[in-house]
Amino acid sequence: MENETIVKKVLDGDFKTIARLITLIEDENPKAIKIVSKLHKYTGKAHIIGVTGPPGVGKSCLISRLIGEYRRKNKTVGVVAVDPTSPFTGGAILGDRIRMGEHTLDKGVFIRSMGSRGSLGGLSRAAGNTIKVLDASGKDLIIVETIGIGQTQVDIVKYAHTVIIVLMPKMGDEIQAMKTGFYEIGDIFVVNKADQEDADKTVMLIEDMLKLEKGKIKEKIIPEWEKPVLKTVALTGEGISKLVEKIEEHKEYLLKSGLIERFKEEKSETEVLDALTSILQDYVLTRVKETEEFKVLVKKTSGGEIDPYSAANQLIKKILQKNVLS
Amino acid sequence: MENETIVKKVLDGDFKTIARLITLIEDENPKAIKIVSKLHKYTGKAHIIGVTGPPGVGKSCLISRLIGEYRRKNKTVGVVAVDPTSPFTGGAILGDRIRMGEHTLDKGVFIRSMGSRGSLGGLSRAAGNTIKVLDASGKDLIIVETIGIGQTQVDIVKYAHTVIIVLMPKMGDEIQAMKTGFYEIGDIFVVNKADQEDADKTVMLIEDMLKLEKGKIKEKIIPEWEKPVLKTVALTGEGISKLVEKIEEHKEYLLKSGLIERFKEEKSETEVLDALTSILQDYVLTRVKETEEFKVLVKKTSGGEIDPYSAANQLIKKILQKNVLS
Repeated sequence: MENETIVKKVLDGDFKTIARLITLIEDENPKAIKIVSKLHKYTGKAHIIGVTGPPGVGKSCLISRLIGEYRRKNKTVGVVAVDPTSPFTGGAILGDRIRMGEHTLDKGVFIRSMGSRGSLGGLSRAAGNTIKVLDASGKDLIIVETIGIGQTQVDIVKYAHTVIIVLMPKMGDEIQAMKTGFYEIGDIFVVNKADQEDADKTVMLIEDMLKLEKGKIKEKIIPEWEKPVLKTVALTGEGISKLVEKIEEHKEYLLKSGLIERFKEEKSETEVLDALTSILQDYVLTRVKETEEFKVLVKKTSGGEIDPYSAANQLIKKILQKNVLS
Repeated sequence: MENETIVKKVLDGDFKTIARLITLIEDENPKAIKIVSKLHKYTGKAHIIGVTGPPGVGKSCLISRLIGEYRRKNKTVGVVAVDPTSPFTGGAILGDRIRMGEHTLDKGVFIRSMGSRGSLGGLSRAAGNTIKVLDASGKDLIIVETIGIGQTQVDIVKYAHTVIIVLMPKMGDEIQAMKTGFYEIGDIFVVNKADQEDADKTVMLIEDMLKLEKGKIKEKIIPEWEKPVLKTVALTGEGISKLVEKIEEHKEYLLKSGLIERFKEEKSETEVLDALTSILQDYVLTRVKETEEFKVLVKKTSGGEIDPYSAANQLIKKILQKNVLS
């Protein structure tokens, strides 16, 4: 299919075309970059929600409920379930699919699980581009699910306007031991499985940590966003409408405070830098690797004659100085 | 302290100096790169073991047993527990520390937990450099623990000569759903908690998957390595001496087959490419970011006038073509 046709079909929300394009993105097919680039100007309309938290807290189930709630409001929803577990995925993916299965026949919902593909930062980049595609395709809401482990996940959460951190009762030790950054990235905190014992204790614990955190923040944004800690039981749907209310409030807050503009610019900055890095990296991987200088220097590094950094510096001086992109 | 003094102290195995140097590495302090580069020629002696698997299978406990077994053989051991869970770590780290605590007063053992520090690929790079430091410091054996989730972890496993994949009984579904790469990266498979029901079933399942996998491999290496599937009960120490036996067998195999040399060269290639990427990336992040062109293009990207890739390409043409590293 011609790139222009694909762009048109994505904008029309054509399910199959979108699915195929995401596969191209995952495969890091150069065609995908061209198409996503063309889609860029049609993006920026969707509200992007990040849902993250440790395995087993019920994120997928919660997302399934959120989909249901937003569909009742006639909003279309895209879900990107980022599954970073390259070799160890399987189980989780299957589980997610089953749990989200009730929405698979609904044309207003597009769900995609993603695995990781080799390259450095590849997953984060692929997720970012998938969000763009779903955004351009006209989805009102895009939910990105990640398990709260690893830098890649944190990177992905950064694509979201509203970050929901999901926890569950009896995580006291974990909550207290969590690093500062954890409270920083969340906009809404959810204690799921709140029908279990000690849910209130967990809520209070998180609230305490948030208070501590707040004291440390220097740059105050006015009006301030009061991070709520909500209780849900995703299995029964309890607390979900309240959660949706808070999401909408946060969206309003971003608009009114002007933060949404700042967010947009920061995201663009990251995207341009990522693109730059990726172009340079491709250059290194495809061209430098083939040179005789590289092979000689690798042998020397392997033999302990030279260290990798000095080898890289020599390479840069020898090859790149003259014609980086000729 | 002078860099030369630090190098000398690391080579002498000085505990405090090693610990401080690893902190510098984690902080991506430029000083660290210089020192690690100087240490490069003293590396290559340690046998590096990767231990990976899903959370909860008992990796830390197993490693603690391995340490004990190797210490009895008068071998010195370094452990790098890679904890990628930037915001969500806490609990796990604390747990690991406690479980490995019995070895903390032993001068022949150096244990370090690592978190992630911001940058793309940062954790993998930091782990790689930490392994180098421990290698140069004269540790006979270096164990790298990662949870089997995420690309970063897979990257880190690649530093290892011998990769041990740890599973436990009743993971049937997970095992069958696991992707091909999973069986590829493992050299030794361990079913831990083998005193639980169905351990033998799990062993058989893994063996079946390995047989399937073996049929697909085109490039046969002679002599072939028969991937063993072992049962252990890390809690009691059952099966650990057999595991150590297999590790030693695998080490012998790598030496005799000449694979160790190929491995060394591949690692050097990766290291030089990583260094190249990192130098270029630093360049992009520090210099390009400050230019007027960049700021203008980010604004245009944010406004939808241009897409990130085209912006990056324009930047490269405008700025980099002339003087990449002047």
